[in-house]
Amino acid sequence: MTDDDRDHRERGKRGRGPALSRRSLIAGVAGAAGLGVGATAIARSADSAGASVHGGDVIEFYGEHQAGVTTPPTAHVNYIGFDLAADSERQAREALAGILRVWTEDAARLTRGAPALADSEPELARVPARLTVTVGLGPGSFTRTGLEGRRPRWLHPLPAYPIDRLDERRWPQTDLLLQICSDDPITVAHATRVLTSNVAGRIRLRWVQRGFRNARGSQDEKVTMRNLMGQVDGTVNLGPGDFDTLVWDDGGEQPWFAGGTSMVLRRIAMDLDRWQELDPASQELTVGRRLSDGAPLSGGGEHDDPDFDKLVDGLPAIPASSHIARARHRTPAEQFLRRGYNYDDPPEPGPDGVLPISNSGLLFAAYQRDVDTQFAPVQARLAEHDALNEWTTPIGSGVYAILPGARRGQALGQSLLA
Amino acid sequence: MTDDDRDHRERGKRGRGPALSRRSLIAGVAGAAGLGVGATAIARSADSAGASVHGGDVIEFYGEHQAGVTTPPTAHVNYIGFDLAADSERQAREALAGILRVWTEDAARLTRGAPALADSEPELARVPARLTVTVGLGPGSFTRTGLEGRRPRWLHPLPAYPIDRLDERRWPQTDLLLQICSDDPITVAHATRVLTSNVAGRIRLRWVQRGFRNARGSQDEKVTMRNLMGQVDGTVNLGPGDFDTLVWDDGGEQPWFAGGTSMVLRRIAMDLDRWQELDPASQELTVGRRLSDGAPLSGGGEHDDPDFDKLVDGLPAIPASSHIARARHRTPAEQFLRRGYNYDDPPEPGPDGVLPISNSGLLFAAYQRDVDTQFAPVQARLAEHDALNEWTTPIGSGVYAILPGARRGQALGQSLLA
Repeated sequence: MTDDDRDHRERGKRGRGPALSRRSLIAGVAGAAGLGVGATAIARSADSAGASVHGGDVIEFYGEHQAGVTTPPTAHVNYIGFDLAADSERQAREALAGILRVWTEDAARLTRGAPALADSEPELARVPARLTVTVGLGPGSFTRTGLEGRRPRWLHPLPAYPIDRLDERRWPQTDLLLQICSDDPITVAHATRVLTSNVAGRIRLRWVQRGFRNARGSQDEKVTMRNLMGQVDGTVNLGPGDFDTLVWDDGGEQPWFAGGTSMVLRRIAMDLDRWQELDPASQELTVGRRLSDGAPLSGGGEHDDPDFDKLVDGLPAIPASSHIARARHRTPAEQFLRRGYNYDDPPEPGPDGVLPISNSGLLFAAYQRDVDTQFAPVQARLAEHDALNEWTTPIGSGVYAILPGARRGQALGQSLLA
Repeated sequence: MTDDDRDHRERGKRGRGPALSRRSLIAGVAGAAGLGVGATAIARSADSAGASVHGGDVIEFYGEHQAGVTTPPTAHVNYIGFDLAADSERQAREALAGILRVWTEDAARLTRGAPALADSEPELARVPARLTVTVGLGPGSFTRTGLEGRRPRWLHPLPAYPIDRLDERRWPQTDLLLQICSDDPITVAHATRVLTSNVAGRIRLRWVQRGFRNARGSQDEKVTMRNLMGQVDGTVNLGPGDFDTLVWDDGGEQPWFAGGTSMVLRRIAMDLDRWQELDPASQELTVGRRLSDGAPLSGGGEHDDPDFDKLVDGLPAIPASSHIARARHRTPAEQFLRRGYNYDDPPEPGPDGVLPISNSGLLFAAYQRDVDTQFAPVQARLAEHDALNEWTTPIGSGVYAILPGARRGQALGQSLLA
């Protein structure tokens, strides 16, 4: 252990941990000392293909905006929902301020490959692999802290859509959200552990939602990801030229929020058993894109514009009820940034004790300046009708204010709590 | 969709799936046709670092031995436990034979990046990323099929160790085991889905255990993985020169089993909250290795032999009760191949409804010719005393016969069922 690691580990003690002496350990096994010490076969299977090492890649934490929104999506994510543990407004506000200070300090260190200030396993911090830590506040962070006047207008639960079957016990809206992304699953696990345990006294953990895309480098990064239904998912998305107008807040309504954005997180279960019974041509008509390459059914390649007027045998090539026809923005203002991940959790027994074959779906994350005007109209249209609804069910839903980025020396949320 | 993909998808139908017509989809939304078709902002965040593409890497399925044992460990694993769904011996035997035929055919295709014969999402089969599919049989596959006489001698539950707190409801020994490994989590999810759903009528799914190591390419492949306690885990292991003597069966006891091996899968929960309270020097004395680099406390580097006789201030540098002192083989015959993975599942509410901070541990997988003589003595010694036991608890345990490999044109288990 390096001195630096040891220092962080020592400072990480939440209590006065017991120190074991060499003597006490030895006393534990009478007569065990001196047992056979022979030669050991030491070898590891090593792959000679030599993939390039990317674990040292860093995405800067500090800046006008938080990372993890417009930065490249990594292979793995943990979304973690917390409620504030506090009885009074004053306690809740102090808890919130304390949490944001700890998370800022720890995230700034972890994302550059350094151990957190109180890091129980500092050795696991060495591989950032594009780690980002993104912090969002749910409505409760404003209502419970006496900060209601600073709540962004759009920060409220989404309307109740007829397609929703929300499990409010398992996947409730929470006061706080952590989004932890990295290309390395050990890094995600470690950052989750550190950032959660370092604020343990001030929060109640409500859920962890684990998601994934293709592994870093398993294919060209320009290839659009597929969801677990096999569909190319995410072709139509915002580009860098849109971020200032459609993603980042300019502080016009809430000056403290300049540089922030909103996030909608929807947990969408897929009924893969029934989807699998549908023939491929019908699957394509449901989505409006070819399964093989994601090209719209009107022709061309994946990134060509769909032609919703094109007729085949007198009928639209892309059915008007297909997912892409319904999801398409009707005005330029109805656009948002998508950054979803697949989920495939261990199946859980039903009431009859029988495990289903799959527990899979999409963690649909959308970022936009204004939930009410950008996201909600599209979601309402999809909820009214989308051919894909037959095989997908929203079971969790949350809206969060993604805080403005922190400058070096500042804490996240400083402009809110000032 | 390519003709080939379509063909596999069509053959994948388990029932006569409903076919949607373009007309029926259009009828679904009165008046929706012809709604705004505007220009679309299409852009994706692309990373310019350009990690080398490794998703096409293939590990051969056919051979004297199954892949996934001595082949390089990939980043992700799903271990999946099934029981045979059958009432009579004859049914169980027919079910087993059918399952092994389907799994052989599907695994041979998926591992080379081709869709399974009945593949509901053939597009997800294109990135094997070193996919391996390994099939094991639990004791029930012999006792329930009338094949008791062919059961390997060591294929029985492990002794009840005093340290065990096995949750037999959640993680029972099963009749069958699938081990699915790949560097890409989407590939693991897809192979799990296909291989499970294609035998759905013949099995009862009991559990899925998801594990991970470092991402492919996040660091040099020669670096030993760390577990979620931060320890270097797996330094002492067998090498290729040991596989024929210590891993692969030679058919001496059960001729049909030549080329097979045994697997012990232990699900070991870690109490990270309490581990974190221990000071780093005590953590190192508990394991017997330095946390920073895994070197034995007697000195040298990670791969240097521990010197259990070395004294510091008159006491052993490596305590006799430390994990490495207790785990060390006492004779050359007490060695086995380790290939463990970390787990970090979403926390589950306790009886009081409160979520614990972590649900983490190790999926300890050991492979050896003979469980009774290679694995069991070491496990018994660790169960009797191991300083690390204070922070680790075995909650699942299974023993499996890993079938001999299949030659092209054969099915796994052919020599057993002939």
